[in-house]
Amino acid sequence: MSDPDAAPAWLRRACEQLELPPDQHRRLLEQLQFLVELDQAKSILRRTYLMDGSRREDTAEHLWHAAMAAMLLAEHSDQPVDPSKLVAMLLVHDVVEIDAGDTFVYDADANADKAEREQRAAERLFGLLPGEQGARLRALWEEHEQRQTPEARMAAAIDRLLPIMANRATGGRAWREHGISSSQVREVNAHVGEGSTALHQVVMGLITGAVDDGDLTD
Amino acid sequence: MSDPDAAPAWLRRACEQLELPPDQHRRLLEQLQFLVELDQAKSILRRTYLMDGSRREDTAEHLWHAAMAAMLLAEHSDQPVDPSKLVAMLLVHDVVEIDAGDTFVYDADANADKAEREQRAAERLFGLLPGEQGARLRALWEEHEQRQTPEARMAAAIDRLLPIMANRATGGRAWREHGISSSQVREVNAHVGEGSTALHQVVMGLITGAVDDGDLTD
Repeated sequence: MSDPDAAPAWLRRACEQLELPPDQHRRLLEQLQFLVELDQAKSILRRTYLMDGSRREDTAEHLWHAAMAAMLLAEHSDQPVDPSKLVAMLLVHDVVEIDAGDTFVYDADANADKAEREQRAAERLFGLLPGEQGARLRALWEEHEQRQTPEARMAAAIDRLLPIMANRATGGRAWREHGISSSQVREVNAHVGEGSTALHQVVMGLITGAVDDGDLTD
Repeated sequence: MSDPDAAPAWLRRACEQLELPPDQHRRLLEQLQFLVELDQAKSILRRTYLMDGSRREDTAEHLWHAAMAAMLLAEHSDQPVDPSKLVAMLLVHDVVEIDAGDTFVYDADANADKAEREQRAAERLFGLLPGEQGARLRALWEEHEQRQTPEARMAAAIDRLLPIMANRATGGRAWREHGISSSQVREVNAHVGEGSTALHQVVMGLITGAVDDGDLTD
């Protein structure tokens, strides 16, 4: 799928002495090239702040936090889920932001062409990987986007819970900066209940607390 | 195990309306409290730079990158591994740095008391979780430290590969800053071959290239 000549020169040189059959050699080089691309997720800033308020969070940090939450909270899904699949899904769910950028969930204009931008990104990024491996990761990402399976619904619940916690920890900082109201937060996060009744109750409790504390306008 | 009163007030309040049996309620609160603790991994700086050289990488970013590498490279382990276990192991392997800090692999003094510092950190951090869940994560971390199982050996190989790639991408920046020589890099990374012959060949190729380019003193 990908062009091995597009890999950095230092990486191609490092693979020159590999004692592997040509197809395996190419396969490993493509995987390492993809890992180099992934590094860019560390430079994509989200609207959410770290819980200590020191700076905004980047996509790689969010993906790790979400995967850890998947490992810990899978049991709270209303429908049975495969915990390993849930972890894998959350690890990759925002990788497309490397090309498409982070789209703020409360930004209606940016969300209008989000699907199109992210499909183009998925095409290029997952296309760097060996055929069937890229297809597997892309299928996992598509499943997450469709939000139809138990894992995808639970992934969406976790993905929404974490930034709300970060907002609570920072006195609603990202909400304030973007003038977000409690009705917007309730609307955008209603689907948490499709994955987990327990997490939905936590999210509603977080929003109520934020309104009580004046961190979120009613 | 943990003290629920130690959870942030905003989190305890959010859980007050949870319609769960008391033990489940406490369980979810402990898990969410642990997720709040985990946020600190985003503020622990490693010696390694991002591949674009813009700044140093933090622990959360490294854990995500390593877990993605596990998902992609598990097939290159010399011994068969459970890919899901490998991913989980890499997701948690540096969580103890939240208390113990990052220990530079080439710093002999800091490595002298590393095991002790990290055991104390594991005790406190995994102790925040519900009993059997904390024990499971701690066992995974201990297994990684012992480096005796196929998953632990492959995890160690991946954990070493990524910072070497980042050094190559940045002209050996972290190596230069700390005066690291090629013999030190070869010695510290020899065990990559215990997990994966292919990754060991890549690592040796990366080091040879670094010496050729003058990024690493011979």
